[in-house]
Amino acid sequence: RCHHPVVEMLDLPFLPFCVLLGGLGFVCVAFVSAWCQHWRGGFALDGSAQMFNWHPVLMVTGMVVLYGAAALVYRLPPTWRGPKLPWKVLHGSLALAAFTLAVLGLVAVFRFHNNHGTPNMYSLHSWLGLATVLLFSCQVGAALAPCPLPPAQHCAPHLPFPQWLAGFSTFLLPWAPAWLRALYKPVHIFFGSTILMLSVASCVSGINEKLFFSLKNGTTDYKRLPSEAVFANMLGLLIILFGVLVLGALARPSWKRPDADSPDSCQVPALLWGR
Amino acid sequence: RCHHPVVEMLDLPFLPFCVLLGGLGFVCVAFVSAWCQHWRGGFALDGSAQMFNWHPVLMVTGMVVLYGAAALVYRLPPTWRGPKLPWKVLHGSLALAAFTLAVLGLVAVFRFHNNHGTPNMYSLHSWLGLATVLLFSCQVGAALAPCPLPPAQHCAPHLPFPQWLAGFSTFLLPWAPAWLRALYKPVHIFFGSTILMLSVASCVSGINEKLFFSLKNGTTDYKRLPSEAVFANMLGLLIILFGVLVLGALARPSWKRPDADSPDSCQVPALLWGR
Repeated sequence: RCHHPVVEMLDLPFLPFCVLLGGLGFVCVAFVSAWCQHWRGGFALDGSAQMFNWHPVLMVTGMVVLYGAAALVYRLPPTWRGPKLPWKVLHGSLALAAFTLAVLGLVAVFRFHNNHGTPNMYSLHSWLGLATVLLFSCQVGAALAPCPLPPAQHCAPHLPFPQWLAGFSTFLLPWAPAWLRALYKPVHIFFGSTILMLSVASCVSGINEKLFFSLKNGTTDYKRLPSEAVFANMLGLLIILFGVLVLGALARPSWKRPDADSPDSCQVPALLWGR
Repeated sequence: RCHHPVVEMLDLPFLPFCVLLGGLGFVCVAFVSAWCQHWRGGFALDGSAQMFNWHPVLMVTGMVVLYGAAALVYRLPPTWRGPKLPWKVLHGSLALAAFTLAVLGLVAVFRFHNNHGTPNMYSLHSWLGLATVLLFSCQVGAALAPCPLPPAQHCAPHLPFPQWLAGFSTFLLPWAPAWLRALYKPVHIFFGSTILMLSVASCVSGINEKLFFSLKNGTTDYKRLPSEAVFANMLGLLIILFGVLVLGALARPSWKRPDADSPDSCQVPALLWGR
């Protein structure tokens, strides 16, 4: 890593960046909610177009903002010291909340389509979006999958939880074999970033598609760039900015746990929670 | 980095991966060309819809496939040894070829719009796509920008090129100050990956948009998922797969130049070409 004074001077601290990013995430959720409320008729649960409006709001909130927050948990310096379990629980809870909103977002669009006799799953947006949520479900499933070895064979030097929890999860709890964690961790990290990229691409294609639908049948054509189009296009750019900043923060070497790439982190003690 | 036998067993070598990726890039170009040739009436230079067809072909070939190839040049193990200039020239040539195709791709769509009285730059796809090409032009411009110090003040121990080339480029030639390279290199790398992500998102939204346009006015609706829609949706997924594989290869620690993150690479000797 570079230590030239000029380079260090421009080195951004992580916490102010997080505050900015949190603000940007809030703006994204506010924008997508305002779009649906002000221009698309608000929200309902009756299978109407107002039910569809939950789809963009839940997807942006879940698959972009909450997902991005979950991805960045391990970049918080306090997570590098002391017991890991509370941070794993935070990472997992944010990811599960994101996943729940995504599933509800899918329910909203499928129910709207089915109520209107519109076919599901024909556009590239729908293929990509569903593939993204399915990949996310694999990611959640793999992290929570039962350990392949019976609990008795796992190394668990200081079991603070009841024995019956053993074997519940490969990653959340500390008794998965080290080689399995060493094998799965880079896969989890790679798909973690990939799913966020796919989410952002899904949002962009979805906003674009929705504007063509809404403004073709409405009084103002998308081509004449009415205020709704400018607003929703800006929402798309804000979502992209949020995604790029999260991915950049994840990739930034100086924000990773200092020993994350060292050989130590592949050894059993380093992988065990509470080391 | 992990050295467990199971982890090492699954470690993919870079060169077979490159061959696979090259094949996938070729398939992307073949798919987008076949789509435009078989379903969209082929190619022309007369401002008609056949002129528009150059837009997807040039964008996918330039901003995705050639751009991806340019990004991966420094992952080739031979680039880690010996003189760097030939590899810089290869990286720069591929990037310039990608940029040229992208500009021609923009000319194709603007001329098509202008010939048909269609407004330019209203959809989110157009905003994102133009932003991507503008970011790419900044990236090319910054890498080729003149050095801020006069040639006489630069350290250039073995000038093999005529003096008049000095100061032409900060990155291509070796006499930029080390602090400037140390400052700019991570920025170049970050925007390098970001531009590829934005390109892929632009392609996905563009394919989605084009299918809504073409199949709404045609005899078969997009909603009924005719063969053209299946083919173009698959093209979108292949482009995403290509982009994800390139970004994954760029991020993979074991494929980076071994000393890329070490303090040495910030020192003048390591930055000088031909070290």
